[in-house]
Amino acid sequence: RINADRLWDTLMEMAKIGPGVAGGNNRQTLTDADAQGRTLFKKWCEDAGLEMGVDTMGTMFARREGTDPDALPVYVGSHLDTQPTGGKYDGVLGVLGGLEIIRTLNDLGIRTKHPIVVTNWTNEEGARFAPAMLASGVFAGVHDLEWAYGRTDAEGKRFGDELERIGWKGDEPVGARKMRAFFELHIEQGPILEDEGTDIGVVTHGQGLWWLQVTIEGKDAHTGSTPMPKRRNAGLAMARVMELVHEVAMDYQPNAVGAVGHVEVYPNSRNVIAGKTVFTVDIRSPDEKTLNTMRARVEAGIATICDAMDLSFSVEPVGHFAPVTFDKDCVKAIRDAAERLGYSHRDIVSGAGHDACWINQVAPTAMVMCPCVDGLSHNEAEEITRDWARAGADVLFHAVVETAQI
Amino acid sequence: RINADRLWDTLMEMAKIGPGVAGGNNRQTLTDADAQGRTLFKKWCEDAGLEMGVDTMGTMFARREGTDPDALPVYVGSHLDTQPTGGKYDGVLGVLGGLEIIRTLNDLGIRTKHPIVVTNWTNEEGARFAPAMLASGVFAGVHDLEWAYGRTDAEGKRFGDELERIGWKGDEPVGARKMRAFFELHIEQGPILEDEGTDIGVVTHGQGLWWLQVTIEGKDAHTGSTPMPKRRNAGLAMARVMELVHEVAMDYQPNAVGAVGHVEVYPNSRNVIAGKTVFTVDIRSPDEKTLNTMRARVEAGIATICDAMDLSFSVEPVGHFAPVTFDKDCVKAIRDAAERLGYSHRDIVSGAGHDACWINQVAPTAMVMCPCVDGLSHNEAEEITRDWARAGADVLFHAVVETAQI
Ligand SMILES: NC(=O)NCCC(=O)O
Ligand SMILES: NC(=O)NCCC(=O)O
Repeated sequence: RINADRLWDTLMEMAKIGPGVAGGNNRQTLTDADAQGRTLFKKWCEDAGLEMGVDTMGTMFARREGTDPDALPVYVGSHLDTQPTGGKYDGVLGVLGGLEIIRTLNDLGIRTKHPIVVTNWTNEEGARFAPAMLASGVFAGVHDLEWAYGRTDAEGKRFGDELERIGWKGDEPVGARKMRAFFELHIEQGPILEDEGTDIGVVTHGQGLWWLQVTIEGKDAHTGSTPMPKRRNAGLAMARVMELVHEVAMDYQPNAVGAVGHVEVYPNSRNVIAGKTVFTVDIRSPDEKTLNTMRARVEAGIATICDAMDLSFSVEPVGHFAPVTFDKDCVKAIRDAAERLGYSHRDIVSGAGHDACWINQVAPTAMVMCPCVDGLSHNEAEEITRDWARAGADVLFHAVVETAQI
Repeated sequence: RINADRLWDTLMEMAKIGPGVAGGNNRQTLTDADAQGRTLFKKWCEDAGLEMGVDTMGTMFARREGTDPDALPVYVGSHLDTQPTGGKYDGVLGVLGGLEIIRTLNDLGIRTKHPIVVTNWTNEEGARFAPAMLASGVFAGVHDLEWAYGRTDAEGKRFGDELERIGWKGDEPVGARKMRAFFELHIEQGPILEDEGTDIGVVTHGQGLWWLQVTIEGKDAHTGSTPMPKRRNAGLAMARVMELVHEVAMDYQPNAVGAVGHVEVYPNSRNVIAGKTVFTVDIRSPDEKTLNTMRARVEAGIATICDAMDLSFSVEPVGHFAPVTFDKDCVKAIRDAAERLGYSHRDIVSGAGHDACWINQVAPTAMVMCPCVDGLSHNEAEEITRDWARAGADVLFHAVVETAQI
């Protein structure tokens, strides 16, 4: 069993870096706070006898040797970067849970056959530089390295320049490492486990996603002096698309979700009918066919809505991942570990994208989830209990060590 | 008949002050550009032999003496301030049209019985300091002077301080002047006159308005990992209210309009279900009963929508004016002038609020409207033709002079 108090103290120590404004963290990727967090993590890794490698995307790989020089390492980790108003656990638990495994193995004097590598993927959140899961995506060959370097933040700063600026651009070519397996522990970011009182989510699948950025153009006009039949109201069309996305998701739930969370309205004035709106549809399903049907229905619905209102529109996909089926053996290792340790567990689908979703394309991969209070995440008030962290890290420990022995 | 070329040149001269970025103007109230515009207008007034008075709200009153020392003056004017991305005619045409009347009278050597006072009302737009029609509202006793001084702009600057800073805080008590009548020429800011090819709108009524600022609170949650039935989606509720406002307005049109033009969504992130929205409903009708029924239906509908979705909400009225019926005699003076001059004309309801709507509470008042291209206003591309300006100012001239003789 891992040392839950040590894990908790380590989480709280990391949370001091890049404090937020409401008890959480703002340690966005490639900021000075990110650099400080990396340096602290590196020190902890060195104290635990690990050897640090860094790739040209800044991803950190802290290696504990195995007994078999030819055995492929088992990787474990997540991300240390946060949302602008992020929590203390999203990502961090997975990285420091990995470190806790190493510390526990050191305490117990166990040497595994396969090396174990604790990983901190750069820019999982994608809040500063879109898209999310950027470095793991480059690692898996989904994105091109130069394309990733060219991503810009809201101030126009380039990812590549900022990576150099904070001093964490390593030498290793991205994606060169071969993995025996990859395991990621993460908070659920949803309410299912807590609602059911279940300790452990055994993640069997990840939902696929489409982000569709929709632009609708009508005509700005004075709300008071433009007769109803003469309006070309892009705001009203946006409202109709928001309802449409909800209806489509409801038709396929519980195997689908969907919402519009990001909207911009121009000129956004009380007495001006919106001449233009830009907003993003987020639709997801663990089933590829369902996901594509949803996308087709949403796109057809947008056309119908806009045609009827004499509006022009465009739809641009700005994010996509296909549904993920995690590796059967890795999933079994997690389920068996939970069973063996006596934690209540259930199979679960990851609603969110994670680094594990991309790494699953290049290595046997699975995820462990633990509950979070009220399902709240991407929020400074994000919370978990010490016992939930303990259960998650225990299961991670057993699954990783079992996989690293065979 | 007025001199249309002189009027046009005067309009173009004023448009040089506070140029916009796209051919229009940014001469927001109490800015340096506003002060420059006032100084130019003052010079023109003095050149025309007028005597300038300024009240403690900064409203300018340029007086041409009449033959009867006991006769109440006829007032004419509008506003010189603009939207941040405003046009060259909204308000300006009414002030400089008033000046053109004086110049024409001077040319013709006509002395009217009643004095004529050309007026520039401070802060009609309300874009920098809400609400709109501020100085005319204080003049009519709708707002308190100290309350008006305390209005702040986006930077927190106070109206009263900015009025002193630009040097246009006068000595006259606000609202002390008694008026024989008030006439305002304004562009329609809507498409009706242009569509019908009508020269002149004889404004018989002004629509009443409610601005209802709605706050809906649910819960931020991850779009991917929150099951559909567990959502408290404030963004979806906002969309439903936008549709509701449209439905209610459609039920009463052509005697009503309504839309939501201003929305804020929190945290406004692609993969976060909105936990909070703030937006403003703008509903209008020339009929008081209809307006209040619309408000009641919208408020009841908001409650129904939010209750069904387990959301909390509040509705705060942030703007209101009652429907206005302009003075029968003043309206007739305008209609007769259009008829006599041979301009095509129709009765029309003002969709927007104007200084005339407040002044109507304290003096016999009416408005003349002229078409604007595509009904476009509050936009730098706002345009009118020289002939439309001519017709509007001719009718204004005849109505004012007729009223100033009896
Ligand atoms: N875990 C997480 O929030 N990833 C970001 C991408 C997504 O919205 O699923
Ligand atoms: N004329 C004008 O746009 N006034 C502002 C108040 C309103 O929206 O009617």
